Amino acid sequence: MKIEGEEYRALWFDENIVNFIDQRELPYKFEIFKAKTVDDVAFAIRDMVVRGAPAIGAAAVYGMVLGEKEMEKTAEKLRKTRPTAYDLFYAIEYMIENINEGKDAFDAASTYVEDIINRCKKIGENGDKLIKNGMNILTHCNAGALATVDYGTALAPMRIAHKKGKKIFVYADETRPRCQGLLTSWELMQEGIAHSVIADNAAGYFMKKGEIDMVIVGADRIVKNGDFANKIGTYEKAVLAKENNIPFYVAAPISTFDNTIKNGNKIIIEERGRVELAKINKKKIMPDWMNVKNPAFDVTPKRFVTGYITEEGIIKK
Amino acid sequence: MKIEGEEYRALWFDENIVNFIDQRELPYKFEIFKAKTVDDVAFAIRDMVVRGAPAIGAAAVYGMVLGEKEMEKTAEKLRKTRPTAYDLFYAIEYMIENINEGKDAFDAASTYVEDIINRCKKIGENGDKLIKNGMNILTHCNAGALATVDYGTALAPMRIAHKKGKKIFVYADETRPRCQGLLTSWELMQEGIAHSVIADNAAGYFMKKGEIDMVIVGADRIVKNGDFANKIGTYEKAVLAKENNIPFYVAAPISTFDNTIKNGNKIIIEERGRVELAKINKKKIMPDWMNVKNPAFDVTPKRFVTGYITEEGIIKK
Repeated sequence: MKIEGEEYRALWFDENIVNFIDQRELPYKFEIFKAKTVDDVAFAIRDMVVRGAPAIGAAAVYGMVLGEKEMEKTAEKLRKTRPTAYDLFYAIEYMIENINEGKDAFDAASTYVEDIINRCKKIGENGDKLIKNGMNILTHCNAGALATVDYGTALAPMRIAHKKGKKIFVYADETRPRCQGLLTSWELMQEGIAHSVIADNAAGYFMKKGEIDMVIVGADRIVKNGDFANKIGTYEKAVLAKENNIPFYVAAPISTFDNTIKNGNKIIIEERGRVELAKINKKKIMPDWMNVKNPAFDVTPKRFVTGYITEEGIIKK
Repeated sequence: MKIEGEEYRALWFDENIVNFIDQRELPYKFEIFKAKTVDDVAFAIRDMVVRGAPAIGAAAVYGMVLGEKEMEKTAEKLRKTRPTAYDLFYAIEYMIENINEGKDAFDAASTYVEDIINRCKKIGENGDKLIKNGMNILTHCNAGALATVDYGTALAPMRIAHKKGKKIFVYADETRPRCQGLLTSWELMQEGIAHSVIADNAAGYFMKKGEIDMVIVGADRIVKNGDFANKIGTYEKAVLAKENNIPFYVAAPISTFDNTIKNGNKIIIEERGRVELAKINKKKIMPDWMNVKNPAFDVTPKRFVTGYITEEGIIKK
């Protein structure tokens, strides 16, 4: 991804340091967090210096390189950081296998990370085929380069379309409570892609007004029948897209498909603390007496999905 | 309405001063804004010291009392404050007629305000008949006493149900960008009504989960065919309620019905400045470079409305 004209990744390994774009400070400050030890990497994952399942996986493989000499201890430290993140466990197992087979840890980690990036790039190329010149595209949350090392999932098709010279305009849902839409806006601004942030409440308004031609979102998990879990509010936008006959696409690598779960009703939704609603960018916006409910994800039934944009092509059924 | 155990109104006229509960400071601070001139009243309306169509109407009649001696000039100043608020224009015309007929301006204004309060109370009594013991009710924005001088429109049925001893639970949408859901929470807290604030994105989640039995919202304007304008996001919640077979009621006095406009497409929607999204409670939550679009209202087509709760009964068709 471009940042102030330079090519960056959400994280990278350099001279035994894992460098992270510090996502806790974005979009307000662009800072690099340097992790020199496994404990630093564990902190970065736990404290959300890095976020997004693929980027967390990348952090884990680099963490395993740093802690290669105490492999089991390192794996255990990293596993504890975000116990619900599937990619984290997958990445750690991948590294243990490679190290046990005597392969070079850094080479294995690099292969893992390049693979993520290539898959995202292909998602972008496949999704780009759906984007016509002049289209207005709505996205929810941040399924961008920050979440996936580079390119992103939902943002990858927009990046590619823009690079090819197509004129697009992006509506970025603010995405309360954590306002990841601001990260999306920051990424788009850096790439020079025209866009506006809108209140989550306004998405339906713009759809009804005919100003949205297409919706592209990411996914945390896509289960066997095609239902998928994603950031809270995704379900709302999907229902509204259908009501307004707007194509609704889910962009995700094949690894997001989880055939062990039959349908969306079986996905357990994490309810998170009140602080996510009560504070934005460390600033208190709700009085202490105020009671909140804060589900972090929702499940969108398959019938609202026009297609799944993957690295292997667009799945319509 | 009760505030710290005392009876209050959103605004009141006392010794040639229009006193407003300063809604810009709520729910953080409870402060009174004193308007001594027509310009002060115009400022209070424009700057949203007072908000909500009926309360704006009340502000306008009191403003006309203050500016009675330059009636036309006063009317013109007040008309310019909030172009979407039908009650504003209605209230000004009402005062012009009364003053032209030689009636006492303050008496006319008092009659107008008492009339609003009585209508809201009746809306509450009529709406209460729809509420069963144990119901969970979703509301959007603040159509409470703060918006209507007393009782509220959407909140009036909940107030009456609670006073009658029915056990209810209210889900209050945060209602970005201006977070009027926090005002709703403040009113409900003062009355001792159990509730939670939720991110606007989470309303669909709770509907789909079966946790919402009914939606009640207010309206800024209901046009001839039954379409209505209300706070941005109302349309989203209406579509989601229909998708989930949840009754969706609009609570509004008869004065909100505007038969001069044929259908919702003819309602002009006010787009407001970026600051509403970029700041919450005066705290900056978005960087200066960030571009936003901020429509303040949306239009919900009649087909999503189960019924209109008015002071004259519930209109179903």
